[in-house]
Amino acid sequence: MIDKTDAIIELALQEDIGHQDVTTRILIDNNETGSSHIRAKEDFLLAGIEVFSRVFYRLKKEIKITSFFDNGEEIKEGDIIAELTGPLWALLAGERTALNFLQRLAGIATYTRQVVKKIERYPVRILDTRKTTPGWRILEKEAVRIGGGYNHRWGLYDGILIKDNHIKAAGGIAKAIEKARLKAPLLSKIEVETTSFEEVEAALKAKADIIMLDNMSLEHIKRAVERIGKKVPVEASGGITLKTVEAIAKTGIDFISMGELTTVSRAVDITMELEN
Amino acid sequence: MIDKTDAIIELALQEDIGHQDVTTRILIDNNETGSSHIRAKEDFLLAGIEVFSRVFYRLKKEIKITSFFDNGEEIKEGDIIAELTGPLWALLAGERTALNFLQRLAGIATYTRQVVKKIERYPVRILDTRKTTPGWRILEKEAVRIGGGYNHRWGLYDGILIKDNHIKAAGGIAKAIEKARLKAPLLSKIEVETTSFEEVEAALKAKADIIMLDNMSLEHIKRAVERIGKKVPVEASGGITLKTVEAIAKTGIDFISMGELTTVSRAVDITMELEN
Amino acid sequence: MIDKTDAIIELALQEDIGHQDVTTRILIDNNETGSSHIRAKEDFLLAGIEVFSRVFYRLKKEIKITSFFDNGEEIKEGDIIAELTGPLWALLAGERTALNFLQRLAGIATYTRQVVKKIERYPVRILDTRKTTPGWRILEKEAVRIGGGYNHRWGLYDGILIKDNHIKAAGGIAKAIEKARLKAPLLSKIEVETTSFEEVEAALKAKADIIMLDNMSLEHIKRAVERIGKKVPVEASGGITLKTVEAIAKTGIDFISMGELTTVSRAVDITMELEN
Amino acid sequence: MIDKTDAIIELALQEDIGHQDVTTRILIDNNETGSSHIRAKEDFLLAGIEVFSRVFYRLKKEIKITSFFDNGEEIKEGDIIAELTGPLWALLAGERTALNFLQRLAGIATYTRQVVKKIERYPVRILDTRKTTPGWRILEKEAVRIGGGYNHRWGLYDGILIKDNHIKAAGGIAKAIEKARLKAPLLSKIEVETTSFEEVEAALKAKADIIMLDNMSLEHIKRAVERIGKKVPVEASGGITLKTVEAIAKTGIDFISMGELTTVSRAVDITMELEN
Amino acid sequence: MIDKTDAIIELALQEDIGHQDVTTRILIDNNETGSSHIRAKEDFLLAGIEVFSRVFYRLKKEIKITSFFDNGEEIKEGDIIAELTGPLWALLAGERTALNFLQRLAGIATYTRQVVKKIERYPVRILDTRKTTPGWRILEKEAVRIGGGYNHRWGLYDGILIKDNHIKAAGGIAKAIEKARLKAPLLSKIEVETTSFEEVEAALKAKADIIMLDNMSLEHIKRAVERIGKKVPVEASGGITLKTVEAIAKTGIDFISMGELTTVSRAVDITMELEN
Amino acid sequence: MIDKTDAIIELALQEDIGHQDVTTRILIDNNETGSSHIRAKEDFLLAGIEVFSRVFYRLKKEIKITSFFDNGEEIKEGDIIAELTGPLWALLAGERTALNFLQRLAGIATYTRQVVKKIERYPVRILDTRKTTPGWRILEKEAVRIGGGYNHRWGLYDGILIKDNHIKAAGGIAKAIEKARLKAPLLSKIEVETTSFEEVEAALKAKADIIMLDNMSLEHIKRAVERIGKKVPVEASGGITLKTVEAIAKTGIDFISMGELTTVSRAVDITMELEN
Repeated sequence: MIDKTDAIIELALQEDIGHQDVTTRILIDNNETGSSHIRAKEDFLLAGIEVFSRVFYRLKKEIKITSFFDNGEEIKEGDIIAELTGPLWALLAGERTALNFLQRLAGIATYTRQVVKKIERYPVRILDTRKTTPGWRILEKEAVRIGGGYNHRWGLYDGILIKDNHIKAAGGIAKAIEKARLKAPLLSKIEVETTSFEEVEAALKAKADIIMLDNMSLEHIKRAVERIGKKVPVEASGGITLKTVEAIAKTGIDFISMGELTTVSRAVDITMELEN
Repeated sequence: MIDKTDAIIELALQEDIGHQDVTTRILIDNNETGSSHIRAKEDFLLAGIEVFSRVFYRLKKEIKITSFFDNGEEIKEGDIIAELTGPLWALLAGERTALNFLQRLAGIATYTRQVVKKIERYPVRILDTRKTTPGWRILEKEAVRIGGGYNHRWGLYDGILIKDNHIKAAGGIAKAIEKARLKAPLLSKIEVETTSFEEVEAALKAKADIIMLDNMSLEHIKRAVERIGKKVPVEASGGITLKTVEAIAKTGIDFISMGELTTVSRAVDITMELEN
Repeated sequence: MIDKTDAIIELALQEDIGHQDVTTRILIDNNETGSSHIRAKEDFLLAGIEVFSRVFYRLKKEIKITSFFDNGEEIKEGDIIAELTGPLWALLAGERTALNFLQRLAGIATYTRQVVKKIERYPVRILDTRKTTPGWRILEKEAVRIGGGYNHRWGLYDGILIKDNHIKAAGGIAKAIEKARLKAPLLSKIEVETTSFEEVEAALKAKADIIMLDNMSLEHIKRAVERIGKKVPVEASGGITLKTVEAIAKTGIDFISMGELTTVSRAVDITMELEN
Repeated sequence: MIDKTDAIIELALQEDIGHQDVTTRILIDNNETGSSHIRAKEDFLLAGIEVFSRVFYRLKKEIKITSFFDNGEEIKEGDIIAELTGPLWALLAGERTALNFLQRLAGIATYTRQVVKKIERYPVRILDTRKTTPGWRILEKEAVRIGGGYNHRWGLYDGILIKDNHIKAAGGIAKAIEKARLKAPLLSKIEVETTSFEEVEAALKAKADIIMLDNMSLEHIKRAVERIGKKVPVEASGGITLKTVEAIAKTGIDFISMGELTTVSRAVDITMELEN
Repeated sequence: MIDKTDAIIELALQEDIGHQDVTTRILIDNNETGSSHIRAKEDFLLAGIEVFSRVFYRLKKEIKITSFFDNGEEIKEGDIIAELTGPLWALLAGERTALNFLQRLAGIATYTRQVVKKIERYPVRILDTRKTTPGWRILEKEAVRIGGGYNHRWGLYDGILIKDNHIKAAGGIAKAIEKARLKAPLLSKIEVETTSFEEVEAALKAKADIIMLDNMSLEHIKRAVERIGKKVPVEASGGITLKTVEAIAKTGIDFISMGELTTVSRAVDITMELEN
Repeated sequence: MIDKTDAIIELALQEDIGHQDVTTRILIDNNETGSSHIRAKEDFLLAGIEVFSRVFYRLKKEIKITSFFDNGEEIKEGDIIAELTGPLWALLAGERTALNFLQRLAGIATYTRQVVKKIERYPVRILDTRKTTPGWRILEKEAVRIGGGYNHRWGLYDGILIKDNHIKAAGGIAKAIEKARLKAPLLSKIEVETTSFEEVEAALKAKADIIMLDNMSLEHIKRAVERIGKKVPVEASGGITLKTVEAIAKTGIDFISMGELTTVSRAVDITMELEN
């Protein structure tokens, strides 16, 4: 099955290699084999190791890769993460693309872990959002889980999230929830985005499955959480950062969703070294 | 012509929308039209505005988009960047994907501009690298140009860059350059990566078209630049950051390539607001 | 956006037309235009009319199509459903494929409507299943809705349905639900398939969001429904037919899922007639 | 070679699995293996067994499948048709799609066999039509052959079938056949659809390779067959059912084409059971 | 419908343009428009003019193209064949690919016409073969028709051609034809390849629809044609050239197939000139 | 990685085989295996042998192929080039497509070798052009190298070639080169097409990396070469043939590009013979 991960890998290899790696075609004999290892140049949490391998397998399935760490393990600067053996041209041609995947995904897991550590004493879960890199949704959502976060919906297709405009179009929160309840696929919960206490009341009354507090101040979040009183799970969302997340966790909220997990995390530093 | 930009847009829309936007299908009438605008929530340099539009056109070509700014213009917090009119369902379904492209590309242009400002008094050019987001090469290289940077090669296919392993396989720098000179496509220059003064000498002697100084200290870069003495363009590469770039520029180097342009830049904050 | 409907239409046109419609290439002038209409040859409920049009538009976008009925309307034998005008070769080349879609989808809607009529006096909803024609999921699920049915999940990706083997692997219903509750995407409900009263009890206790009674006898369904007593929605599933559906509806069950909607429904009879 | 069967299998797996089987991801360990068998829940004629396997191989090529029956064999209720061993997640994720193919194709073969039995004492062949499920042409045509039927043309590309409109455009049957004879690919026969005795006469005179009697009454078919007197093969077509097929066979006709083979046949009942 | 012509055009544009036409991106303003015409630099028979246009439309649908000649017309050196107006970048980027199609297809039509002229006094038709340029089958077969030739089968799928190995596997010509007659799609003729008089006799006796004389000498062809005596059409095949074709036509053969039509024909000379 | 070679092979197999090889399906048992060899029917230079194999592997990866010659070796009439063993149906179905690739590519290598021999006493290199068969760029460029030629740029993406119109748009050669120098990717050389001595002077002065003399007479080429005096490499281009190439080589030019390499070369004669 050619899945979306194959699609993005394919696209990536094609944009980098194009008709061929000209330097390597000219200077490296087609039959020459080689070995290399990848080494961490800083501390981080590993994610993306199987995508890293998949890039090389997709390029040339004869490449052998041995990983010394699994996704989710803490890597220290200097650690050898994996070893590769195979046609030298393929090691050289796949290096950059494979590392580009690995460095970014490990970056997301590492950042997520940092956030999660901030709130680990509270009964709250950190959620990702749909603010992922286009083409990378499936990979980034997994990196978030590896870092200790949880997944909000995967896309527009696997959950009902009623926003401002849906409410207006339906004629109010009550009507929107009622209509959604009738038409939703059997296994979809219904979440309602609220921006005021009136809306929170309406959502409670209409029996939303989950209530989102969108861009509310800390004070308002506290009041809303109290009012809702565990009757239904509550999610805080909007502009939450590594700095503010703990204060929000303290309000007793059930879920905190953070676009930052996938928009500000940076690639970690990993290098491939060829052996002689 | 279905180019790579269409491919990544297609992938992005499919991963977000899947079989359909269920909330919208249930709550928004198919024939309802609407308007929206996108608004900057911080200052940045605009890039990606035509990709933003292309996402919506690809989703539903009847959407009308008016842009008030071009790529390369300075945007201030609060600026309305563009207005959209069209089927309401399509505005809602395309919003997240279109913004995800725009926010990241503007982030790269903005960061590049910051770097470029640091070195604008020096006769040096900032170059991107191949450390781009897999699937996004063409988009990110353009964002770098918009920010005032220049493009190194686009991939392994459009230039000869001789590294350590190529040199070993060929039996030395002289032989590698000679062989490359013979076999290179007519219009490709030959750049050699050097890590020592001996290698710089060898590259000079063998008449490389460009010499790269890889991961050299500031001191070494200075000495190498002096030695080369404008005989051939010189590029500094490896671990250069916003903080260190100016010092390197002062060495008289011709080009500075920075992976950071595309690996640490973050998405800028832009929002879409529906009108009533 | 090239969605799955385009993919199946494309596949269908290619398998029927191949390199070309040879008869038409030889006998019909390329510039000749024509008109045709489609006429019902029996009574049915209309579904698939927009896919019918999409086939022709995909083949030749200059074709004009006017529909006289919408999906969901009752069609009587002899009714003219739509008129087409355009290049004659395209009307001839697209006819069979477009009708093949329309006839089957209308067949599903018609059959669903029959089932729904049987149970309309009971507060129960008829659900489809994943027993759809491979490649047609999205189209058939919509035809079911048009016929008055409701959608169970769309695929393995948009809902948690815990079956026998999942329960075994997790070490019992309680543990399975607990684990699923922890790991499920935020907006997914958890349904458990049960085959005995013990399992029903366990599912109730573990707070499943929905309980499925799989292949239970009418008697057992009644008892289970009573026991559950509206604490949580209950679905009957397994081998339910047009003949048995009403008896099951009488048990007070909330949902009845029927594979039959998409496995035994037949294509209705519709014809295209060219005008002179 | 990625043929059309792979294309429809790919589409089917993607629409069912999407980004992943969430239940299985959460509850089944990735390395767990399992076994299952498929069992007939009614009597039928087997078809589609190699497509069934291909679905699983496409999903995960390590799955081992042993079939105990070949396409074309009579299956009795309770028969174990095949056994599967492999990663448990893959058995669960591929089950529904693989069965959906198998059940429908076996249904077509079974129905075709029923029709063929009705006419086995007559020197006539049962033909399929182009009224197949879009996307399934190649699979359904093979199921018809397995059931004892024969294939009419595969699409618009592999045979000349001159209908009403082609005749009009060419200015009569004689001219149409003459023109087709001149322009047809070397190995294509020319069949003419006739609806009256005059047309039959014209087709005979113009030396059509095959004459189709379209929607004629039994009486008219008899007369036409007599008139043609074995000079050229004759095909009866249009609205022929399991009930009427024998009467038509008695007329001495050479071929009977029946859309019903692929439009009214239903999926047979087959189940997969996991072993412990 | 994305047909095979679009597929080869797409492939061609991508291999030539890649990520972009760098020269044009740098030197031509995106909004600049221009005009050009294509001019014949030798005499030839026109073919491929609609593919030429399709390349440009596929690249940028706003380009306007006016053709002054149709496929099948004789072009004289110096003739202006068509005029184009549109974005200058697109005229420049599409030029080479569009001409590459046009020049080769016109070359095939021109060569076919030459062959056809040699035999125009004889009641014989010139046929193409499957020795076409991979990826170009549909285009080259049409160019042959434009040149006055006729099409043999389009591929392995639209006709039965029984060769040596098929005969061996079936146990002789008689058995092979009998089996093929039984299993062939309704509208496929059966041709048999023969290399001796014994095989010709066997094919005649078994009522092949067409007999091919493969690589026979002129003398043998004559004798075979006499023996067959118009009972069934006869095709000469194998190594026939522009020089030998007339002698073969004189034997009274019905069809002559020539691989040369598509393997030795050369591209004609056509140029595009930009206007000021 | 599915590269462009796979894409053209895929397209080729699909256009030839379509839904299936009907003759073989009917007459050859699916499990029958066979052997064959390919034999040269004339002398030529081998190219395309790995593409030949790739066609068969793509069709059925179980086929075993042993090559007795490598690309670049001289083949004599009668030589057995390779042997194949595998499923008989696959040998028959892949034969034509695989040979079509091989014959054309060997034809290009053979013709290139002929040209190269003509000029081997001169210090000049023969270059290909972009006048390749659409879809075959990568294959034909390699065949040229095998024949002893060199590659000009691969497409519009990997080199700057400034032509007439670019010069006009930029306002003269000097400005065009200056602008290109500023904007070109780091590793691209800049070539300028000149048609007069004035333009040659301007190009020299503006320090073009390479100067092309387009369609100049022998006399003018001589004078231009003298004037340039090895300051920068010079390429002759336009209408150069096997007959005229030596005279041009004598002028002292550095490169000669010839469209003929890929537009007039013909397919060489190679056959596949099945063994018993």
